[in-house]
Amino acid sequence: MFKSLESERAGQTRDLTDVLDAIPFDQQGLIPAIAQDIDSGTVLMLAWMDRVAVERTLREGRVCYFSRSRNQHWQKGETSGHIQDLVELRLDCDGDAILVKVRQRGPACHTNRESCFYLLADQDQIRVTTDPV
Amino acid sequence: MFKSLESERAGQTRDLTDVLDAIPFDQQGLIPAIAQDIDSGTVLMLAWMDRVAVERTLREGRVCYFSRSRNQHWQKGETSGHIQDLVELRLDCDGDAILVKVRQRGPACHTNRESCFYLLADQDQIRVTTDPV
Repeated sequence: MFKSLESERAGQTRDLTDVLDAIPFDQQGLIPAIAQDIDSGTVLMLAWMDRVAVERTLREGRVCYFSRSRNQHWQKGETSGHIQDLVELRLDCDGDAILVKVRQRGPACHTNRESCFYLLADQDQIRVTTDPV
Repeated sequence: MFKSLESERAGQTRDLTDVLDAIPFDQQGLIPAIAQDIDSGTVLMLAWMDRVAVERTLREGRVCYFSRSRNQHWQKGETSGHIQDLVELRLDCDGDAILVKVRQRGPACHTNRESCFYLLADQDQIRVTTDPV
């Protein structure tokens, strides 16, 4: 499926169900999903989805992940209120990574930072780049 | 390590080696790495790094991944010339994902598209959004 799409021109389509069937989920049935803020372009976080989470995200228009530590689905913001409203869901060329572009309500990170990626390599150190809100 | 950094203010640092020692690499010794174009903000691709790839990326200033299919290190662009010059390397709050901000030479995707994320979910279809260059 994904190989056949490589040479297709813009505008060509495939049935969504067929494409989801072709996703090479890992041994735990998961695929990494990157969340990006649609307005600022900031990469907010990386989490994991299973097939159900992908379908639920598309159906409900709010991003749903699968928590590996809690072994359950997890609609982002269900407890914190920091919901991610889905704007776009994309797959990559090999179908083994997802990019969701979102409208993020509140901070994406559980530390109350805008983004989870606040640890910057700087020479022989790692530096915290933002304060918790 | 990562827990202790959560409440730190901006500017606080830790020794890079200690932080790399604390990364919870998966069973294959890998961590997912997102590449983002520093100028456009476009998310270019997701690939995988092991400890050696992280260290080599930081030392050489060019992004190096670990290919799961070929089971070997792979400096992005080593055959295509589509090198990723490293601008920033970041870790997320749990230390289980990497974000590299890069200057991308040529297209990032092996299909000769700018980004690997050219497959967009649109209603009950997946649509190709960009032409191969």
